[in-house]
Amino acid sequence: MNKIEHIGIAVKDLDVSNNLYTQLLGILPYKMEVVESERVNTSFFKTGPNKIELLQATDENSAIAKFIAKRGEGVHHIAFAVDDIVAEMNRLRDKGFILLNEKPKKGADNKLVAFVHPKSSNGVLIELCQEIDNKD
Amino acid sequence: MNKIEHIGIAVKDLDVSNNLYTQLLGILPYKMEVVESERVNTSFFKTGPNKIELLQATDENSAIAKFIAKRGEGVHHIAFAVDDIVAEMNRLRDKGFILLNEKPKKGADNKLVAFVHPKSSNGVLIELCQEIDNKD
Repeated sequence: MNKIEHIGIAVKDLDVSNNLYTQLLGILPYKMEVVESERVNTSFFKTGPNKIELLQATDENSAIAKFIAKRGEGVHHIAFAVDDIVAEMNRLRDKGFILLNEKPKKGADNKLVAFVHPKSSNGVLIELCQEIDNKD
Repeated sequence: MNKIEHIGIAVKDLDVSNNLYTQLLGILPYKMEVVESERVNTSFFKTGPNKIELLQATDENSAIAKFIAKRGEGVHHIAFAVDDIVAEMNRLRDKGFILLNEKPKKGADNKLVAFVHPKSSNGVLIELCQEIDNKD
C-alpha cells in the first residue's frame, strides 16, 4: 500500500462540517461529489499528499447514517492507495482478511475501491483505492 | 497543516496488532517506543509519506484504555504535521477550537504535540505535531 490516500469522516451536516474543516485545516474543500451508489454527499480537502473526505448520508439507509446513529460523528474509514486493487484484494484474502466486496467497485474521486471488514483490522474500516486511469 | 503525519489506532494487544498490521500493510513496524507520559506502548509503520501508530495502554488510567473501554479498538486520533505548533495552536484557539493542551508537550517519535478536543472537530481527536529538530 503506497500511502494514506484519504481519511473518510462521517458528518451529520456537510455544510457545517465544510466550514469547520476549512477553519481547522486552513484550506477550502477542492471538490464536492455525490456518490449515489453509497448514498452520500462528499467533500474533499487536500492536505499535502493526502486528502480528508467528509461524508454526509443522503438517506437513512446509507452506511454513513447507520454509522452515525451507532457511534456518532467521527472517522469512518482509512483509505490506502494501491497500484493494483485486484492483486491487493487477493493478497489480503490469502492472509485471512475479510473483504466486504467480491470485486472492486466505482467509488468517489475517480477510484476503484474495496473495503476490508473492521473486524479484520482492529475496528478500523480499511478502504483500498486505485485511480481508475491507472488501470486503463 | 502540511500532511497527515500519522493515524493513531488504539489496540488491546500490541503484539497481536503488530502482526495484523504487518500482514495488512505488507511491511514490518520500523520502531516501537514506550511513551511513559501517555502510559502507552506504541509501534510505527511507514506507509509512504505517512505513518500508522498503534497504541496499547500500559495501565487502566491511560487515555487509550479508557477509549477502548468505551468504544472498542479503532482509530484514536489523526495527527497533522505542522511547522510551528505554537502558531497553529494560537490560530485554532482564535477560530474557537478547544485545545486539550495549553502548551505543546513531548510526544512519541521525537515530536512536540498538542490535541484538539474531538467535540470541536466532528468527533475526531486531532493531534498537531512538530518535529522537535525543526524547532531548534
